[in-house]
Amino acid sequence: MRDARPLAVSLGEPGGVGPDLAVMAWRDHKNGADLPDFIIVGDADTLAARAKMLGESPSIVIVGEGKPENTTPPEHKLGDGLGVWHCPLGAEAKVGVAQVETGGGVVDSLETALALATAKTARGLVTLPIHKEALLKSGFRWAGHTGWLEARCNCKALMLFVSGDLRVALLTIHIPLAEVAANVTEAAVVSACERLARGLADDFGISAARIAVAGLNPHAGEGGALGREEIDIIAPALESLRARGVAASGPFPADTLFHEDARAQYDAVLAMYHDQALIGLKTADFWGATQMSLGLPIVRTSPDHGTALDIAGGGTARPESFYASLRLADALAARRARGEGAR
Amino acid sequence: MRDARPLAVSLGEPGGVGPDLAVMAWRDHKNGADLPDFIIVGDADTLAARAKMLGESPSIVIVGEGKPENTTPPEHKLGDGLGVWHCPLGAEAKVGVAQVETGGGVVDSLETALALATAKTARGLVTLPIHKEALLKSGFRWAGHTGWLEARCNCKALMLFVSGDLRVALLTIHIPLAEVAANVTEAAVVSACERLARGLADDFGISAARIAVAGLNPHAGEGGALGREEIDIIAPALESLRARGVAASGPFPADTLFHEDARAQYDAVLAMYHDQALIGLKTADFWGATQMSLGLPIVRTSPDHGTALDIAGGGTARPESFYASLRLADALAARRARGEGAR
Repeated sequence: MRDARPLAVSLGEPGGVGPDLAVMAWRDHKNGADLPDFIIVGDADTLAARAKMLGESPSIVIVGEGKPENTTPPEHKLGDGLGVWHCPLGAEAKVGVAQVETGGGVVDSLETALALATAKTARGLVTLPIHKEALLKSGFRWAGHTGWLEARCNCKALMLFVSGDLRVALLTIHIPLAEVAANVTEAAVVSACERLARGLADDFGISAARIAVAGLNPHAGEGGALGREEIDIIAPALESLRARGVAASGPFPADTLFHEDARAQYDAVLAMYHDQALIGLKTADFWGATQMSLGLPIVRTSPDHGTALDIAGGGTARPESFYASLRLADALAARRARGEGAR
Repeated sequence: MRDARPLAVSLGEPGGVGPDLAVMAWRDHKNGADLPDFIIVGDADTLAARAKMLGESPSIVIVGEGKPENTTPPEHKLGDGLGVWHCPLGAEAKVGVAQVETGGGVVDSLETALALATAKTARGLVTLPIHKEALLKSGFRWAGHTGWLEARCNCKALMLFVSGDLRVALLTIHIPLAEVAANVTEAAVVSACERLARGLADDFGISAARIAVAGLNPHAGEGGALGREEIDIIAPALESLRARGVAASGPFPADTLFHEDARAQYDAVLAMYHDQALIGLKTADFWGATQMSLGLPIVRTSPDHGTALDIAGGGTARPESFYASLRLADALAARRARGEGAR
């Protein structure tokens, strides 16, 4: 039997494309797109105003408000309208502008959406993009969703990007390129591969996942001539991982990992830094890739794009990544509900 | 009238796939592939032995030997067999092994091929891969073809990768990732963009080329939060370039530059480092991309792969990149012969 609980979608930055994407999902579902049921956790007025801008008129159905007080799932089907767990912004959203004034309301909606997922009232959490700078100025203490989730769930998350069968995890994330090399340590590579293998087993049912580890330097260092991290750090980490039964191989030159023939050889890549992963992934699939957090007690996915303030309200936002996030969260939640994992 | 001079192809590492690719080109031309005429500059015995391994029996036609003494073009058509400008190796090549002993012969063939191109006896130079480590040990003083060509031609070259309409130039090349940031300077960005614009005009007939410059950091630094090189170095360089009439824009997040929609917006990318360019390029086109040197007095192209010692002699080498190198060299030489440039 299909799980009746909806996914909880945090609305994110109200001046960005998040509200557009929520309205588009309702519209495209109405027009036949197969999308899982979800409720938006955010400001109902912002959604209504954005729908009007886009020339759409969904019923806005308030399914809850404020902090969730019990664990009764809010019953809501997309076919009945846009279900909203209302979190007032405290200030009026301005289309195309990220305001510090609405930061408190944005954080409220994040906390509420997480609470719904943690209480299992919702099947999982899908986070629409936040505006990091505006949130930081309004008192949010994390550089993004991932750090906040790690603090709230008291555990370490691994960022994984997914496009079909291509899965790429990141060893380092939002740091300057000049700081990457210093953050590539044997302990970090071992820990990330172990968590990646566990996540692939638990969330994708892939036991003994084949993990391809990227080198750090061009040509994976070419035997030490173009950098020694592969020899001094990554290779020993891989040896230690294999001794523990993790099927990690490499380090491979990063430019040979993302084409179709290469992708058939592994279940996931561990990339050393942000652009190493994202250039490959977004060249292969610019619009449809999605992001998830491995290692959290809840299901959490997210589109892999930003707030796109410049096109908010214009109807030109591309919803593929949001839809992929909804579908992936749905699949992950279904697997967890069935109690399936590789182990 | 079609230029009767052949391209000069340096054989490169005799233990690698270079000889396979030369034989394959002869075979595929015989079977109808449209490939420009070329002669191999290298050891005739190595070629004959490799042809035998691959079950092929081309006529090996010796069109010259030793240092080219005059500028009479060696007349040779692929249809007549494999034309070879014979440069003896001095030691027997071992299939699948890069030897220091053959290094001198490899360098001889490089120098001879370059001399043929410089004397305009050949229409251009296509370099099959060399084995850097073996050559360095045998006394070659450069880390690769590009440095050697710069020294011989007494000018600065810009490495450009080409796959159809996708052209990507590199600001830094074969250095460890940890050293990249320190090498991104305003002067280097300005110089590279100017040379790129000039090269695109001269060699591709693109006047006022639109150059998209990649950022260094994830999200192109996100307003300084993830690194300041975009603000402190790249943006001022772009401003100065635009003041000089170079249509350079950016810095753009590198992960947004290589998908099809993005590629329609520019004529070439300037990437800050090796993998930033190569991950995008090789994800988009793993087998068919090629490389060229901009800014040299001669035409020079090269496949974008290495010696692939492990598959030498096995018949499984993929010749697409070599064929693309031949075709690009042919097109560049034809443009130069017609005296066409954008200016």
